[in-house]
Order: sequence, then structure tokens, then C-alpha cells
Amino acid sequence: MKITAGIDIGGTNTVIGFVNKEGKCFVEKTTSTTEFKEVEKYLEKVSSIINDELAANPDWELCGIGVGAPNANFHKGTIEEAPNLLWKGKVPFCELLGKFYPELPIAITNDANAAAMGELKFGKGKGLKDFAVITLGTGLGSGIVVNGDLVYGHDGFAGELGHTIVKPGGRLCGCGKKGCLETYVSATAVVRSMFEILCNSNKPSRLRDIPYNKMTSLDVELALKEGDELAKECYDYTGKILGMKLADLACHTSPSHVFLFGGAAKAGDLIIKPAKESMEEFLLPIFRNKISIELSGLMNENAAVLGASALAWNEIEKQEN
Amino acid sequence: MKITAGIDIGGTNTVIGFVNKEGKCFVEKTTSTTEFKEVEKYLEKVSSIINDELAANPDWELCGIGVGAPNANFHKGTIEEAPNLLWKGKVPFCELLGKFYPELPIAITNDANAAAMGELKFGKGKGLKDFAVITLGTGLGSGIVVNGDLVYGHDGFAGELGHTIVKPGGRLCGCGKKGCLETYVSATAVVRSMFEILCNSNKPSRLRDIPYNKMTSLDVELALKEGDELAKECYDYTGKILGMKLADLACHTSPSHVFLFGGAAKAGDLIIKPAKESMEEFLLPIFRNKISIELSGLMNENAAVLGASALAWNEIEKQEN
Repeated sequence: MKITAGIDIGGTNTVIGFVNKEGKCFVEKTTSTTEFKEVEKYLEKVSSIINDELAANPDWELCGIGVGAPNANFHKGTIEEAPNLLWKGKVPFCELLGKFYPELPIAITNDANAAAMGELKFGKGKGLKDFAVITLGTGLGSGIVVNGDLVYGHDGFAGELGHTIVKPGGRLCGCGKKGCLETYVSATAVVRSMFEILCNSNKPSRLRDIPYNKMTSLDVELALKEGDELAKECYDYTGKILGMKLADLACHTSPSHVFLFGGAAKAGDLIIKPAKESMEEFLLPIFRNKISIELSGLMNENAAVLGASALAWNEIEKQEN
Repeated sequence: MKITAGIDIGGTNTVIGFVNKEGKCFVEKTTSTTEFKEVEKYLEKVSSIINDELAANPDWELCGIGVGAPNANFHKGTIEEAPNLLWKGKVPFCELLGKFYPELPIAITNDANAAAMGELKFGKGKGLKDFAVITLGTGLGSGIVVNGDLVYGHDGFAGELGHTIVKPGGRLCGCGKKGCLETYVSATAVVRSMFEILCNSNKPSRLRDIPYNKMTSLDVELALKEGDELAKECYDYTGKILGMKLADLACHTSPSHVFLFGGAAKAGDLIIKPAKESMEEFLLPIFRNKISIELSGLMNENAAVLGASALAWNEIEKQEN
């Protein structure tokens, strides 16, 4: 059976999965990312895991490897200045991994682009030409599909909606700028907004008992579900800003669908409903009532590994055509 | 010689040009748009102009027709609810024109997308994969090229950056929304901003002698060139907002170049310099010092006709591949 390996590189751990062409993931193995100060040693470990699995499954034929990693550049095959990884500078990741698998197509992109590729190949994006995936985790990641292909841009870094500008001079972002979308819309942003709302109101809320460093977007979601008015205000505010920027997205690439993924997306309609209302309000009339905002089709799966392997399957298809 | 016809439909007049594969325009003919209340009669006129030229140039072989028109839909071949045209509803333009030329590829898109296609085939976009064209006229139009192809989006209406949101609740836009980019960045917007600046300042300016309905962006540009401080403030303000939204564009499709076109772009560095400074300020660090903002390569030509004919050449190439 033909199979690809999908490698999801996180700041702490790396997950390696083996995925067939239909998007079924057979095995997932985890190894440490932080343990390896040198990327060469890390890749020795990764390849030994891959080789062990191939040996244990003699009917598998490995056809390609896809990698999802922070600050990854599809065009160059590099990981560049990733703040959460130990390997600094420009790491020629695909070239180094290719030393172990010189015959195979190897491709890399950032996590959110990989999620979009997973959606395209295995999720709700199957058969769609123009859509976007928004991941709401610590930050806001995004992958944009145009005409059935992921958009990489001239430099390989396209699809960074988390750093579009909501409010010039607004909240300080991890990137050093102020007022980026991800400081208003992400799991972290939900907490920031919640404290702002607590400050500006006198209404009671059980969230007043949780310290800043302990609160998560899940706390706010649970409070909302128990009727907390201020928590509702927080999700409404978050959804409203998301919707406004999705209206901007429509003006750029006019997608038919936007799929939400990640921790803060689990709130489902609590964020989708205000986002949809606000998007429609800010949309140019010709775009209204055309764009569906939905949860990702891969919400309960390891979308990162599926996305990384989808990237490999996409390269294989390109070679075949 | 193989040739295509490019038809640029404006609210008042229509220009028809005959363009070879290298982008040389041989003849341009103009006819009224407003004179024809029925699109069928209009198309009879257009086809008679085309046929007369073909008869006068027996060595021409017409291979395709491209059309640039307001509210045109590439996917459907329609013009839909164009505010400045007499033909209301959804006009199946390509189908109707095809009755005269059943053998030929005929394609339509909006003016700014046609300008981007012209830039791609005949202008500074030749050989580029990812760029955008921004037209600064009465409104702000845009065409986005990704991976060497124009972005149409799922519904055929992509590339409407003029209606991205700068300020929620801001200036009233012709589309009915408030705070759209084109109310802050366009030839019309320059005048709006100029009056706002005149109101807020006590400094003298010769622009205080021109009534609102008479002032054009050219008046502001000339005043600036003569040292008018408030006119400089106006172009700086306009460029700053343009730059901020170009930083957002980079987060979407990461273009290598942005080409400016149209009346307000003629100011050149007066708008490009502040736009560039502001774009760099608002860009995510990975995108900095990579994107060139320049005047269109077709500034002194009939870009609308070249763009429309480029659209036809693009369809012909697709058929050949």
C-alpha cells in the first residue's frame, strides 16, 4: 500500500503519522523536539522512527514526506527563525531530511497551511476551489486556497491573516507590531478581551475569580454556556472582529467557505454566529449570503499530521501530472 | 497576423482596440455606451465596428475577444447590476456577443482585473508570479495575481480591495457601507481628505479657494508640488492608509510587486513614498523589504483595452495547452 509520512513539528513535541491516499492515518508516533539541539540529530531520530514503522509494515511503500512546522517556507524547503524552536537561522530542513530519503518528494509548509492542505485533500475542502482555513490557537493561523491550490505567495509565506491590522496602535502582538488580528481573535485573545470586559463592567462574573495566567478560552466558553453575560460579550466581541476581517478576506480572494479550527473554534456557534453576522454587515453587497463559515472537517482528528501528509500527496500528484 | 479585440466598456463610451500577441495595439475605435438602451443593439454596433476593421485589414485573423466592464463576472460571462450602465439585471454578455462570433473564445472581467491581466501579459508583470494592480480612479479597483493566474474567487468577483474596511463606521461609500478603503484612497478620496484637512487646520492653502465639486486630485497634486503643506499632509495621509492595507494584502497573498495605476497614481512618489513607509511599518517582519510598490508599466497606454485583449490571449493560451 502506498503511504506518506506526515511530520508535525511543535515547539515541544513532534508527531509522525503514516497516512494513505484516502486520508486514513495508521500509526502516530511522538518524539521530543526540544531534546535535540542539533537538527541533524533530530532528523536521525525522526528517520529511525520512520524506518522502524516501515520495517514493521512490509506492505507499506513510502512515497513521500510532508512536514508542518512554524516559519516553514514551502518554496525554499526551510524553517526560518522559528521563535519556538532551538534551531536558529535558516534551516534547510527538506535538504537535510532528503539525505535520508534521496528518492522521495519532501515538502514543508507552516502549520496553518498544512491544515488547509489537509482540509483540501481529506476534509470539507474536497472538491472546493476557493476557501480558507483559520486556526484559532495561541495565535491565529491561516491557509488560503485559490483555484484549488494553496497560496504560497512570491516568498513562500502567504496566508498570515493573524497579522493583518485590526487597530493601528492597538494590542501588542508577539510579532512586535501592535493591533494584529491575532491579538483580538485567538484562544489567547479571548482571555485578553475577557479581562478588558471585566475591567469595563461592574456585572458579576465567576471569571473574576480566575487569575490572568490561569484563565483559558475554555473557561470563558464554559462560563458563557452557564449564562455568564460578560463571557457572552467576550465571544460576541471576538466573533465580531473575526467577521470584519473575513469580509476583508472576501475582498481579496472571494472564498466560498471559511473553516475554523483549533482550541477557540471548539466554541462553535458561540463564535461562528457573531462572526457570520459581522461578516455579512461588512461585506460588499455582491459577496453577501454566499460565504459559509463552518468548523473544519478535521476537528476531531490530528489535522496537523493529516495536513502534513496531504502536502506530500499533493507533491506526488503534481509529479504524476 | 493573429489578433484579438479588446473591448473596454465605460459608463459613457466604449473603446475597442485590436491587439497582437506582443501587446501592440493597432487601431482604437470609440462608440457610445449610453446611446444603446438595449444591449443587443449595442452589440450590433460593436460587432459592426469589429467587422469593418477586419475587412479593412485582410491579413488579420481574429482569434478571440476580451471585455473589461464594471461588475463583470468572469465565471458566468455576465455583467451584473452595474450601477453606471443602462442594462440592468444579469446581462449574459459573452453569450450575446458569442452569437456574432460563435467560433471564438470570449472572456469578460471587471476593469481592474483586466488591468492586472494587461500588466501580466504586456506590462511589468511579465514573468512575475505574484503581484497586484491597484487602480486609483473615482474608486479603488484591484486585480490580484497568484501563481501566475488572476484570482477570480469562487463567484468570479475576487479582488475588491476598495471595499476592505479601514474604519468601521467611517466615510460613507458608494456601495452603501461605511469606512471602505476607496473612501480614503482614490482620486475622489484625495478630495474628501483634503477638505477634512482644510477644516482641521488654520494654515493657508490656495485649495481653500476651490469649491468641493470643482476640486480634483490633480489640484491637490499641483498644490503639493508648489509647496502647499496641507496638500502634502493629504497625500501623506492617503499613502499611509494605502500602505496599511497593502500590508494586509501581503498577509493574504504575499505579492512581490504592487503596481499603481490611474489618475491618483500619476502623483507617483508623492503617494508611493508614504505608502511604502507605512506598509513597511505595518508589515509582519518576515514580509519587510521584499515588496516593491511601483507605477504600472502601462501608465501611458490604454491599459483597459490592452487588459481586455490580454484576457482574450490568456484564454487562447489555455486552449492551446
